[in-house]
Amino acid sequence: MIPFNKPFIIGKELAYIQDAVASGKLSGNGKYTQLAQAFFEEKYHIKKALLTSSCTDALEMAAILIGIEHGDEVIMPSYTFVSTANAFVLRGAKIVFADSRSDHPGVNEGRLKSLITERTKAIVPVHYAGVSCDMDMIMDVASAHNLFVIEDAAQAIESSYTSRNGKKLPLGSIGHLATFSFHETKNISSGEGGLLAINDEQFINRAEIIWEKGTNRASFFRGEINKYGWVDIGSSFLPSEITAAFLWAQLEHMQEIQHKRIQIWERYNTNFSSKLESFGIRTPTIPSYADNNAHMYYIIANDESQRDYVLKRMKEIGILAVFHYLGLHTSDFFVNYHDGRTLPWADLYSETVIRMPFYFELTIEQVDLICQALLDILIEYQN
Amino acid sequence: MIPFNKPFIIGKELAYIQDAVASGKLSGNGKYTQLAQAFFEEKYHIKKALLTSSCTDALEMAAILIGIEHGDEVIMPSYTFVSTANAFVLRGAKIVFADSRSDHPGVNEGRLKSLITERTKAIVPVHYAGVSCDMDMIMDVASAHNLFVIEDAAQAIESSYTSRNGKKLPLGSIGHLATFSFHETKNISSGEGGLLAINDEQFINRAEIIWEKGTNRASFFRGEINKYGWVDIGSSFLPSEITAAFLWAQLEHMQEIQHKRIQIWERYNTNFSSKLESFGIRTPTIPSYADNNAHMYYIIANDESQRDYVLKRMKEIGILAVFHYLGLHTSDFFVNYHDGRTLPWADLYSETVIRMPFYFELTIEQVDLICQALLDILIEYQN
Repeated sequence: MIPFNKPFIIGKELAYIQDAVASGKLSGNGKYTQLAQAFFEEKYHIKKALLTSSCTDALEMAAILIGIEHGDEVIMPSYTFVSTANAFVLRGAKIVFADSRSDHPGVNEGRLKSLITERTKAIVPVHYAGVSCDMDMIMDVASAHNLFVIEDAAQAIESSYTSRNGKKLPLGSIGHLATFSFHETKNISSGEGGLLAINDEQFINRAEIIWEKGTNRASFFRGEINKYGWVDIGSSFLPSEITAAFLWAQLEHMQEIQHKRIQIWERYNTNFSSKLESFGIRTPTIPSYADNNAHMYYIIANDESQRDYVLKRMKEIGILAVFHYLGLHTSDFFVNYHDGRTLPWADLYSETVIRMPFYFELTIEQVDLICQALLDILIEYQN
Repeated sequence: MIPFNKPFIIGKELAYIQDAVASGKLSGNGKYTQLAQAFFEEKYHIKKALLTSSCTDALEMAAILIGIEHGDEVIMPSYTFVSTANAFVLRGAKIVFADSRSDHPGVNEGRLKSLITERTKAIVPVHYAGVSCDMDMIMDVASAHNLFVIEDAAQAIESSYTSRNGKKLPLGSIGHLATFSFHETKNISSGEGGLLAINDEQFINRAEIIWEKGTNRASFFRGEINKYGWVDIGSSFLPSEITAAFLWAQLEHMQEIQHKRIQIWERYNTNFSSKLESFGIRTPTIPSYADNNAHMYYIIANDESQRDYVLKRMKEIGILAVFHYLGLHTSDFFVNYHDGRTLPWADLYSETVIRMPFYFELTIEQVDLICQALLDILIEYQN
């Protein structure tokens, strides 16, 4: 039995939780929260990082920070996780879904401009599979129309974008705001968890307040004010030190984790290269400006029927490959709000993407076994 | 040095986290989440319990579930934590703050009726210090005006209310909805954490969807539907199994924790009884219909100046007693929204409440030492 994902303990996760208890501080914004935040700020050149209970929470903070009001429009890919949209819907936004690219599931950057109206407030590019969107193109469009850019970097830790000036920029450091996820399937995990990256300094002070339930508590503990109180809307966006301690232990082993994941990704890719084409199946495209953080290995089946057959047969033999998003523009919730544009690529990826098992403890032998099983099933399907 | 609060490990917290990792499920809604939820459902007769990342999150779920719309009014005490209000403000509610009782900081139930208008949608009683509000009175008013009651039971685990028919009802099982907290200062803690208790069955299905980011994923995993997708608004309200595992280990030791806390509470009360009166200081009042879950030991100082002197001197000698809420009606955020009614009791408790150090590992000898120190400081203040 090979699961799709498998959590792991790699270092001092449990010792750090014990230490957090002993330190006398187990609620949010303690020592481990600050270590994790400083890690992101230093390594990825983020002006201010704030840990959150989930990437969803980080997106909700972003929606509050850019001042989404009823009827404001936000452009994002349809082929994404439901939270990318829900965070803005909760603040009253109208979501305008964009199609994916033909060569990979990321948003079609060249078509964003045509979706902008006078009510557009933000663009939310999603770095699908940790592979960067063309951020120069997106930042140019946003700048020309005075829009905010919020990078949904849920899958994009330790990935980067090479700008047209040749500069390599960490994903999450480019948009005005960006969000990361530490959900159990991510490269670095705390079970559930997220982070808001603030690159536009105007948002830093208010972000801290919203994060601490609408109070100026953070400022109080820095000794800047005499007492703290209710000064803004907000929520309990900050995770406990239990979560932060677990996360920090994983961040300490980032290099080891990434080394192994890249090995796994390359092995899938080598095994599949030139072998899947004859079945009408595509392997991932990584644009020249994008890095590969080995978050996910996916293939694009020839059609839905082939995809479903593969998933079913793989499961029967004990290998859990899975499908991914269903385009949000056709969801039960949104179908009546959608403006009727067809989004053929989002539809296609909804029907054809297969995610292969991928986790730190997966061995190269298991990858070989999975690849051979897939090829056998494809031949079986063909006959 | 005696801190105000001190987290502790009492049983298998770390072993259960390790087990959650080994089980292959570290995101939300796994084995430990279900154990903790079943505990609440069985022990406190709650129809459906859902763990959340915080009590704030549980309150936000409640606000979504009762369908708060812009301009709906929600009545709650001013003397409460900011999240009680913010959760409803985030959905567009107008908060109508009620005053506290003269005999204790809980809401003045007898005055709620006068605050009801045609736009009133809900009453949110807060069981301050785990001491029950007069729930018969509140449920009667709510029923007569067709309002929802959401018990803010953040501090009220393992506490109860004796109804006029003599029935002892667990707090959190009485209102249509109720919310609990597992923040580090609570009797049972997971650092940060909360729970939504659903007693009105009409909310169960939608609550599960909102909890799972607006998807019908829970239903999918029970095999009730073939695929899951976006069907409603929602957020990532569910905590990880890391958090749930820690919580479950503490719930297993509930009896031991409560036994110790009640000893501490009684010792404070015995030490102070009759000794504080001459300084103009009041000890807690527990109405006959209410239980005492020993969440907090507070005293009510004679005035703000005495209170501040006590806190300052206690800190100097290494004992961290603390003040509590600042009435929300006078907060920077709300002062311009408030309707101008004076809330003298909320003002008084904002100025005079002192919370004594209170945690599982506090010894009886330390309680005696704290009480003696306080008495010495009061004499010092008098002279």
